[in-house]
Amino acid sequence: SLAASPPMVLAGGFFVLILLGAALLLLPWSRVGPLSVGDALFTATSAVTVTGLGVVDTATHFTYLGQGILLLLIQLGGLGFMTFGVLVLLLLAGRVSFSHQFLVKESLNQTQLSDVMRLVRHLARFVLIAEGLGIVLLALCWVPQMGWHKGLWHALFYTISAFNNAGFALSSDSLSQYVDSGPVNLIITALFMTGGIGFAVVSELAQKRSYNRLSLHSRVMLLGTLMLALGGMALFLLIEWHNPATLGHLSTGGKLWAAWFQSVTARTAGFNTIDMSAMTPAAVMLFLLLMLIGAGPGSTASGIKVTTFAVLLAATRAFLLRRPQTKLLNRAVPAVSVFKALAVTLLSLMLIFLAVFVLAISDHDKPFLDLCFEVVSAFGTVGLTRGITPELSATGKAVIMVMMFLGRVGPLTLGFLLATPRVHRVRYAEEPVAIG
Amino acid sequence: SLAASPPMVLAGGFFVLILLGAALLLLPWSRVGPLSVGDALFTATSAVTVTGLGVVDTATHFTYLGQGILLLLIQLGGLGFMTFGVLVLLLLAGRVSFSHQFLVKESLNQTQLSDVMRLVRHLARFVLIAEGLGIVLLALCWVPQMGWHKGLWHALFYTISAFNNAGFALSSDSLSQYVDSGPVNLIITALFMTGGIGFAVVSELAQKRSYNRLSLHSRVMLLGTLMLALGGMALFLLIEWHNPATLGHLSTGGKLWAAWFQSVTARTAGFNTIDMSAMTPAAVMLFLLLMLIGAGPGSTASGIKVTTFAVLLAATRAFLLRRPQTKLLNRAVPAVSVFKALAVTLLSLMLIFLAVFVLAISDHDKPFLDLCFEVVSAFGTVGLTRGITPELSATGKAVIMVMMFLGRVGPLTLGFLLATPRVHRVRYAEEPVAIG
Ligand SMILES: [K+]
Ligand SMILES: [K+]
Repeated sequence: SLAASPPMVLAGGFFVLILLGAALLLLPWSRVGPLSVGDALFTATSAVTVTGLGVVDTATHFTYLGQGILLLLIQLGGLGFMTFGVLVLLLLAGRVSFSHQFLVKESLNQTQLSDVMRLVRHLARFVLIAEGLGIVLLALCWVPQMGWHKGLWHALFYTISAFNNAGFALSSDSLSQYVDSGPVNLIITALFMTGGIGFAVVSELAQKRSYNRLSLHSRVMLLGTLMLALGGMALFLLIEWHNPATLGHLSTGGKLWAAWFQSVTARTAGFNTIDMSAMTPAAVMLFLLLMLIGAGPGSTASGIKVTTFAVLLAATRAFLLRRPQTKLLNRAVPAVSVFKALAVTLLSLMLIFLAVFVLAISDHDKPFLDLCFEVVSAFGTVGLTRGITPELSATGKAVIMVMMFLGRVGPLTLGFLLATPRVHRVRYAEEPVAIG
Repeated sequence: SLAASPPMVLAGGFFVLILLGAALLLLPWSRVGPLSVGDALFTATSAVTVTGLGVVDTATHFTYLGQGILLLLIQLGGLGFMTFGVLVLLLLAGRVSFSHQFLVKESLNQTQLSDVMRLVRHLARFVLIAEGLGIVLLALCWVPQMGWHKGLWHALFYTISAFNNAGFALSSDSLSQYVDSGPVNLIITALFMTGGIGFAVVSELAQKRSYNRLSLHSRVMLLGTLMLALGGMALFLLIEWHNPATLGHLSTGGKLWAAWFQSVTARTAGFNTIDMSAMTPAAVMLFLLLMLIGAGPGSTASGIKVTTFAVLLAATRAFLLRRPQTKLLNRAVPAVSVFKALAVTLLSLMLIFLAVFVLAISDHDKPFLDLCFEVVSAFGTVGLTRGITPELSATGKAVIMVMMFLGRVGPLTLGFLLATPRVHRVRYAEEPVAIG
């Protein structure tokens, strides 16, 4: 049926794109030296799902053409997902409820499905403006330092990689050399946060220009992003302040920049300016949480999303205070949204558990915490790594590839499934069981 | 208000019992050599919450009087919880729904709250019969081997510890010396599975004597327990078959007994016949899952419960097949039960995450997987250990104590809170947010 097809179309499109991308990367003009089919598939999957996990070094294993192909895959994957996310929102709007429809109309200023083309044009303009600005600003930093040729290429590559939250970098230590550079920290984080918050929020913000008139969705995204960024930064500073391998050797200013960057990159971007494998277990746990949360629905981000996390916290509060309604920023979250938040989160956790379990067998020589890190990084399409992904067994790499794919396609598909229950003829008699 | 008090009464009662127990354990006649106040409190908490985690060795640090005090705390904690669980079920029956009321009436054959005393008498008779049988059967194994004096004491101690799923043992390697002893394996597992499946199920089974006429609750408990036991056994055999430190050195018969025992003990009993710290990471993950699941509601078990786990799986299936109803054994689970299952599980996971996070800071020298193991073991009041609990910092031990207490008292309290929403005057306007 037509109702079932959109997520299948998305998954199928991504799958074809990955195969095509891998074939292009295997061309002799794309690569420097040999590249196995498995590594090409892994790299293409990582690019299309805008994850950034790698089994080979981007800068040394690919020619300019190869890097250009990666950029194309990243841009198509990121843009495809954003467009699709917006279309699903529109599609859901037509079939879910008046209030949901109202949300979409309000935030996108669209009245019906025939406006799709106008919407896609809006989206394209948004991407062009953001990426154009990014290229110009980064070029201002890097051209004086690297010269026109290399400076512009770096500006282009990092802008596309950052705006699409892909996390691909042109050096093996990501952006570590800019750990205390204010301009680079600001431009890169601004790019990936804009790409990650969701087009609906940006669009509504551009129209209303006032926080108080925004929809609940946009207000939760903005406030939630701010609180997660500052909370993550504060916790990271507390945990890693004296760790000589991460923050310890930096000046106070450098510590603040590094904590800011690491706090916001963890929720899907995937660049890093400090060594992930040198972090303490507590910091790794903080990262697991942030990577699981991710950024905004209908954006280049994966994970359960900031809104889902906010609803979970609000619902917990409502349970403990025994309130009949889940309250969030002076609005009540509908019971169906609370249910969806719980379901999405638990299904994600089940999938992560299963993947780590398989890795604990196939790659039992690797530290357990590192296996958790790579799996959650893949599922949230974050791309941060404790350095073990290139050393994983073939089974292990396959698991990571599947998790990147499911992390990217899964939640949308799931949202779609949850929103459109199939009519079922057989009705069963209800009978309760005791819970907890 | 009266509605809020039952869980508070339970928590308060347990708290007083723990303080009293610690004071008694500190008496010079109870202990062999010195015992710190912290260790006495930890031991009393472990006994009252029927967990079995220890910071000192039961056999060598306590006199017969001290061990007798432990038995008393275990029996009061276990029985108190079972009684309370049944009372809450009854109480809920009066206020939740007709179908729930029907469930309780059906399974307990009670018609109203005034029958409480009769119910408690039934419960006491059940405990006496089960424990009497256990003592006689274990004495038949151990008196010929150890003599009357020691044999009878062991039979009494292990029966009470097993039936209440307390996991306290009289040797530091728990029941490892009986790893391939058929009779001991059978008697001990029968005792803790009977105590852990819940009085409601036992009571209904005694009356109806036919699986097909049982309530959905009892059928889910029986079938779920069987499948978890056999599934856990099969996975454990697969993972650990060649591990020389666990199953590798045993005969095939010994392997089967050990896998059976470990599979069923993990879901709350807490005895062990193989060395937990020698298991591979994959087996540890299997244990994390089993310990989190636990056994039956209204029993001596903690964890999210078998019914909750069954509802989670059934709900996942319903999501993926896009069915409007969550089907379980040809019955539909009410939406409110599905919601409760999701909420209980996620709240438990949040609590576990928080506890491991604190331990990752306070005890960062310990392996991460071991910290996860001890926290889940404490929260599920299981009592299995990777051997690090006695070596934890003061903060770490406090976290474990809090988790034992919350694991025991929490789910019931939570169930109570979820079942009785407080009437709230302010109603907020509903507005949806995008999820996932
Ligand atoms: K990424
Ligand atoms: K136990």
